[in-house]
Amino acid sequence: MEREGVKLLGHWASPYALRVKWALNLKGIEYEYHEEDLPNKSSLLLHSNPVHKKIPVLIHKGKPIAESLVILEYIDEVWKQNSLLPDDPYERAQARFWAKFADEKCVPAIMNTFSKIGEEQEKSAKEARENLKTLESGLNGKCCFGVEKIGFTDIAAAWIGCWGRIVEEIVNIKLIDEDTMPVLSAWFKYVLENPILKECVPPYQKLLEHNKSFHKILLAAAST
Amino acid sequence: MEREGVKLLGHWASPYALRVKWALNLKGIEYEYHEEDLPNKSSLLLHSNPVHKKIPVLIHKGKPIAESLVILEYIDEVWKQNSLLPDDPYERAQARFWAKFADEKCVPAIMNTFSKIGEEQEKSAKEARENLKTLESGLNGKCCFGVEKIGFTDIAAAWIGCWGRIVEEIVNIKLIDEDTMPVLSAWFKYVLENPILKECVPPYQKLLEHNKSFHKILLAAAST
Repeated sequence: MEREGVKLLGHWASPYALRVKWALNLKGIEYEYHEEDLPNKSSLLLHSNPVHKKIPVLIHKGKPIAESLVILEYIDEVWKQNSLLPDDPYERAQARFWAKFADEKCVPAIMNTFSKIGEEQEKSAKEARENLKTLESGLNGKCCFGVEKIGFTDIAAAWIGCWGRIVEEIVNIKLIDEDTMPVLSAWFKYVLENPILKECVPPYQKLLEHNKSFHKILLAAAST
Repeated sequence: MEREGVKLLGHWASPYALRVKWALNLKGIEYEYHEEDLPNKSSLLLHSNPVHKKIPVLIHKGKPIAESLVILEYIDEVWKQNSLLPDDPYERAQARFWAKFADEKCVPAIMNTFSKIGEEQEKSAKEARENLKTLESGLNGKCCFGVEKIGFTDIAAAWIGCWGRIVEEIVNIKLIDEDTMPVLSAWFKYVLENPILKECVPPYQKLLEHNKSFHKILLAAAST
């Protein structure tokens, strides 16, 4: 398959870069991958995303696109095979709504559980559990958010199933409870065990060690 | 024109509801408007947006859609006339990128300038000015973000030109400087003076008084 001049600037431990890898792989688009050294960002990254200077950036035919959800929409519009978003405008709206909910409500609460301590951490963990439970309601008992197959919201949010476990292990607080969130837990498993997606997920132990180091840096910074 | 069962739940002082009114009006879609009493939300609102319980909600053929940017995408997909997003996927990505930037970088900094005091306020105001300057760079010298006409990003973000002035007046801090942000200032004027859009913008004095009351409540809450 022709590469069509597709390049992804990413970082192996970034769930936002993972989203883009997942979308490209589900659509069978070959691409050149450039791993960024985040403390020493490449001039290509700085030039391609001058506003945020962050990965992921997708470069297609020389043109850079930043922001992972924007990239997913772009990929779905340029390469029509294996649609990520459904055809029906109402269902598309639902998919975007839940992806936005995960980004704006679940992820910050999980991140605060990771980075805060004491009462603030407890409060964030409670909020994370409540918001994950709300996210579960969006599944409406189904195996995934997509209509009959893995789609936009699944790609946008199911990484939480893996990264959330890592946060739980590092801070020793339960966030994703299989008993109280059975549909959500089954969804994480369904998406993360998909063979095409699974091969892009970093090894658990490597990701755990990476985030343990990151956690130490965060706590040290907070205590100074 | 047939109403096509379109209902908008909004609040007159909400810029997010304004976005939806602007989109519907630009496309010439007639709709039934329901003004919400926010301290006593209607059961229709609570039922239509159980996740956030917030306006705006667009109800089309009995189905509710929440989150203003999601609603804009929906409107553009259902009613094809006067497209808000361009046809080209790369230009569509740019439009979404800048709308997201305005929401995530400009609006919170302006809101913090409004709600904080002292050093925190100064810091937020500086951040707001820097982010507005970055937003200006997205215009690339043009009169609006849309390709040849007012579009998605313009509808998503140009209300900042009006609400930003109100924040400036209430807290007495300059945010939008015509000398240092000439293209941004001209853009605000171009969009806000568009006859179709202008008629939906609340009267300045009424909006000012409303936000002065809101500001007093915020400061009182912060000092307790």
